[in-house]
Amino acid sequence: MRRDTFQDYVQRQREAVEVALGAWLPAAPACPPLLAEAMRYSLEAGGKRLRPILTLAAADAIVSAVGRVEGAATSSEQARALALPAACAIELIHTYSLIHDDLPAMDDDTLRRGRPTLHVVYGDGVAILAGDGLLTEAFALLAREPRSADAALGLRKLRVIERIATAAGALGMVGGQAVDLEAAGTTDIPGRTRPSLDASGLQAMHAMKTGALIRASAVAGAIMAGGTDAQVASIDRFGAEVGLVFQIVDDILDVEGAPEELGKTAGKDAADDKPTYPSLFGLEASRTLASDGVAKAGMALAEAGLSDNHLMDIARWVVGRRH
Amino acid sequence: MRRDTFQDYVQRQREAVEVALGAWLPAAPACPPLLAEAMRYSLEAGGKRLRPILTLAAADAIVSAVGRVEGAATSSEQARALALPAACAIELIHTYSLIHDDLPAMDDDTLRRGRPTLHVVYGDGVAILAGDGLLTEAFALLAREPRSADAALGLRKLRVIERIATAAGALGMVGGQAVDLEAAGTTDIPGRTRPSLDASGLQAMHAMKTGALIRASAVAGAIMAGGTDAQVASIDRFGAEVGLVFQIVDDILDVEGAPEELGKTAGKDAADDKPTYPSLFGLEASRTLASDGVAKAGMALAEAGLSDNHLMDIARWVVGRRH
Repeated sequence: MRRDTFQDYVQRQREAVEVALGAWLPAAPACPPLLAEAMRYSLEAGGKRLRPILTLAAADAIVSAVGRVEGAATSSEQARALALPAACAIELIHTYSLIHDDLPAMDDDTLRRGRPTLHVVYGDGVAILAGDGLLTEAFALLAREPRSADAALGLRKLRVIERIATAAGALGMVGGQAVDLEAAGTTDIPGRTRPSLDASGLQAMHAMKTGALIRASAVAGAIMAGGTDAQVASIDRFGAEVGLVFQIVDDILDVEGAPEELGKTAGKDAADDKPTYPSLFGLEASRTLASDGVAKAGMALAEAGLSDNHLMDIARWVVGRRH
Repeated sequence: MRRDTFQDYVQRQREAVEVALGAWLPAAPACPPLLAEAMRYSLEAGGKRLRPILTLAAADAIVSAVGRVEGAATSSEQARALALPAACAIELIHTYSLIHDDLPAMDDDTLRRGRPTLHVVYGDGVAILAGDGLLTEAFALLAREPRSADAALGLRKLRVIERIATAAGALGMVGGQAVDLEAAGTTDIPGRTRPSLDASGLQAMHAMKTGALIRASAVAGAIMAGGTDAQVASIDRFGAEVGLVFQIVDDILDVEGAPEELGKTAGKDAADDKPTYPSLFGLEASRTLASDGVAKAGMALAEAGLSDNHLMDIARWVVGRRH
């Protein structure tokens, strides 16, 4: 197997995801044009496509491993084709979460990826619906693709749907956002004390809000490619570390970043009085936490003989990113 | 088989759904308490539970039919147990849709089922998240339950997930709400003409907004119980008629109903200048359309020998309801 440079690899996977998203997302005239336009506005805003690339790289990693279960993918192409719908579904879910989080009733952000947020352009009602639509289409896509009457593959699809839905739902992303909202005081309800987050509360909140879906992104690829239980568990631990590192770096960038690089308003967390890694641990300790996470991610992969692939390149990308 | 009165039947299914919802919905402490409380506030507000009861009755109908496919349920109890997760998932989706539709950015309703709407009590941010949580948990539930390694049942679950997600998404409920919102002028965006709905536009909008999920409710029960393709198609046509009748009656009640019976503000559609069946066809013609729909629903069932069950009782319940 010729080994691409990592940048080539990322670029090719990103393009594959964007082409597939364009083909799989409901379009006019069956989809009301205004809704189709709003969903695409956010989906096509770019973004790193980190999560779907993680899904595809995890699928690839299973093929590169030594021991495989019966029925597992036998080539990188096949593995990625099996994982592509999950990769796209996760990007749909990630995009919906950004739309809803940006609403005035939540984080009230007006700038995202360098463009006005969806509700600024289309109004809150359409933004809520576009988010609802993207979330729902993610599950339609997961159930439908890859089209196959193969019953064993069907059971893998169900495992992936359950895992992604749990990661995205009340015990995962939605739950984490609820904790964040309450801690930021956005939900002040008469007669209720506003909770304050300590270090372990902050980590638990981020593990739900950001970590769970990043983790599920990696796991979904491994399951779809037919990984063994041990391989899936190892990629799950890897994903947990990457999710943690992602959030620490996010908080650091919010303190340090220039708005033109971030594509959103820097310093917003501090202005909102949100607890962050730098505010709780300081900048240096936060950076150390992040590099420790990358090291642990590598160990998790090594335990299952999954080191010869692009997963660690992704972990290093996450810790080194500037936006 | 002893035949219960229809009222007993409805009451028992409603209780089964409510017990299962309580058991299956994420709860504190794993789910953040504020979010758990908000999701339950709306879910426990009562409501008719029409959709889940339709799912269970459709599952029952497959058992009562003459020809069944291999692997189909052999008793009513078994059929309903197979269909119960889908019934509950659909009620979760219905409840989320009410929460989001009631938001100030959408229909701006402050009263629902006789109680203040969720956002009035918990604020818009928590209401958006509670809706997102309910929608996402619906898919976690559909993928997980009934727990089984049976591959054929797994393929039925995937069919149901795809059908429900499509009915609830951009081509169904979310799409219909987007059309409704645009026609009501809530989304007025500079430089865009507000579309007006004629009779066929109104029907298309309702078929998406309300009809698709009611239809999927019936179909999901038939698929989970192991119905033949012909039986599922017949129940699909039945569900389409019931969905249409439901909406016509809804519009009639909005003109006629007393608020204490409706549990919401009567005359709201007219005040919002929304097109309705009575405003387009008049009251009498609307009533005729509704009874025609019930007759067609009965014919759809008769074609597949599915008349000996509670489905037509449900159609008559829908046309005769006072709220």
